[in-house]
Amino acid sequence: MEPVLFYGIPHGCSFGSIVALEWLGQPYRLSRIDMLASPAPYGRVNASRETPTLLLEDGETLSESFAILQHIAARDLDRKLGFPQGTRAHDRLNRTLAYLHTSFHSAFAPAWIAYKLAEGDPAKAVLRDIAHDKAAKGYAHLEALLAGRDWLDGGDGRTVADAYLVGIARWGEDLSLFELAREYPRVHAHLQKLEADPAVIFAHAIEDGLPATTSGRFLGHVSLEELVPRLAA
Amino acid sequence: MEPVLFYGIPHGCSFGSIVALEWLGQPYRLSRIDMLASPAPYGRVNASRETPTLLLEDGETLSESFAILQHIAARDLDRKLGFPQGTRAHDRLNRTLAYLHTSFHSAFAPAWIAYKLAEGDPAKAVLRDIAHDKAAKGYAHLEALLAGRDWLDGGDGRTVADAYLVGIARWGEDLSLFELAREYPRVHAHLQKLEADPAVIFAHAIEDGLPATTSGRFLGHVSLEELVPRLAA
Ligand SMILES: N[C@@H](CCC(=O)N[C@@H](CS)C(=O)NCC(=O)O)C(=O)O
Ligand SMILES: N[C@@H](CCC(=O)N[C@@H](CS)C(=O)NCC(=O)O)C(=O)O
Repeated sequence: MEPVLFYGIPHGCSFGSIVALEWLGQPYRLSRIDMLASPAPYGRVNASRETPTLLLEDGETLSESFAILQHIAARDLDRKLGFPQGTRAHDRLNRTLAYLHTSFHSAFAPAWIAYKLAEGDPAKAVLRDIAHDKAAKGYAHLEALLAGRDWLDGGDGRTVADAYLVGIARWGEDLSLFELAREYPRVHAHLQKLEADPAVIFAHAIEDGLPATTSGRFLGHVSLEELVPRLAA
Repeated sequence: MEPVLFYGIPHGCSFGSIVALEWLGQPYRLSRIDMLASPAPYGRVNASRETPTLLLEDGETLSESFAILQHIAARDLDRKLGFPQGTRAHDRLNRTLAYLHTSFHSAFAPAWIAYKLAEGDPAKAVLRDIAHDKAAKGYAHLEALLAGRDWLDGGDGRTVADAYLVGIARWGEDLSLFELAREYPRVHAHLQKLEADPAVIFAHAIEDGLPATTSGRFLGHVSLEELVPRLAA
C-alpha cells in the first residue's frame, strides 16, 4: 500500500506534511488522529504519541515532521521541494526547517501549556508572556528573511519549508498573541499567498472534516484499526 | 581558509558540532563566543545571536545545529557519521536528530528560564516542574531507544546523533533535575562511554579553556574580529 500519513487534529503541525504530500503528486493516504482523545493503539505507531508519523510501504514508521518533510522532498528531487545532499541549497533548507522546528515551534509551547490551564491560574499569564516574547523574536526573524523574497527558503520556488510554515505560523493568531497583518506584514502576505494554494485549501478541508478536493494524488482515509496489522514488528 | 565553527560557552549545544568536527577528521578552526557577553559583531554572523554557526570556505554562514551536523556528515559519507539521502538510514538519522533538537532540547527551555530568575520568584518552581515533566519523558524515550543498542541511532557505529546527545543530555544534571545513573541507567552508561572518547575529552577541554589535544585536524582558534572581513556580504 502507498504511504499513509497520520495527522493530528486540532490544528497540528502535521498540516505541513499534508501540504507537502499534495505538492509531491505521488499516491498517498491519510489517517486521522484526534490528539485530545489520543487513541491507545497510536502508541504503537508513535511511542511519544505525537503527530505526524508517516507509515512507509514496508510497514516501517517515520516520525518527526522534519524527517518526514525531507523524506517527501527526496522522493522526487525534480519537484524541487528539497535539494540534493551535499549542495548549498540542501544545507540552507535544513537550516530553515531546523529554525522553524526548533526556535519557532518551541516559542509557542508555553502558550499551549497556558491554554490548558484553568482560568485564573496565575501561571497562565507568566507562560503567555514568555511565549509572546519568544514568538515575537521568531516573527521578526521571518519578517526579515522574507524581505525581497518570493519563498521562505530564498530559492525560486516553494519548498517543504513553506509547507511547514503555513501550518504553524497561524498559531500566533490562534492563541491571540499577535495581529500578523499589522505587526508582521510580510509574514502575513506570505501566509495569504500560501492560503490561496490548492494544497493548502485541501489541507484545511481535511483538518475541518469537510469535503476536500485533491490537486495531488490523495487516495482517501484509512483508519488506525485497519492499519495496525500492517505495522512492522 | 578551512571552515570555522563559532561555539558558545558556557555549556552550549555547540558541543556536539565540535565533537562531530573532530570525528570528521578534516581541517577546521574554532571561534569562541561568550554567550553571556554576546559580543555585538556576532549579530553579523548569526542574526538570532545563537550558537553554533559554521563559517564555510566561501564566507557563507550556516546556522542551526541540525543543519551543521548533517553538513559535517555529508562532507565524507565514508565516515558514516551520516548516510546518503534517499536511504532509510538517512531518514532514521533525521528522525533521531529532529527528536533531540525539538522535543528533547526544548524540554529544558523552561528550566533555563527559571535558572535566570531571581531566587524566590514564584515562577521559578512552576517552570522547573514543567521542564522536569517534559525532560523525564525525553529521558524515558532515550532509555527505551538505547535498549540493546550500541549507538543512539541504532546502526553499527557512532553518528552525529551521538555527538549532539552528549552535549545536551548532561543538562538534566547540570540543572539538578535528575540523577541519571539511578533514574536512566542506559542513558547514563551511553554518556559514560561517549565521555571516554578523545573527541569528547577534547571538546570539554575547549569549553573549559584548557589545553586540548585534537584527535582530528583542529588547527587552532581564530577571533571574531579577525573573521569579520571574511564574512560574505
Ligand atoms: N518533534 C515533533 C513534535 C510534534 C508535535 O509537537 N506534535 C504535536 C502536535 S503539533 C503533538 O502531537 N502533541 C501531542 C499532543 O497534542 O498530545 C515533530 O516535530 O514532529
Ligand atoms: N535552534 C538552534 C538553537 C541554538 C541554541 O539554543 N543555542 C543556545 C545555546 S545552547 C543559544 O545560543 N542561546 C542564546 C543565548 O544563550 O544567549 C539550534 O539548534 O542551533
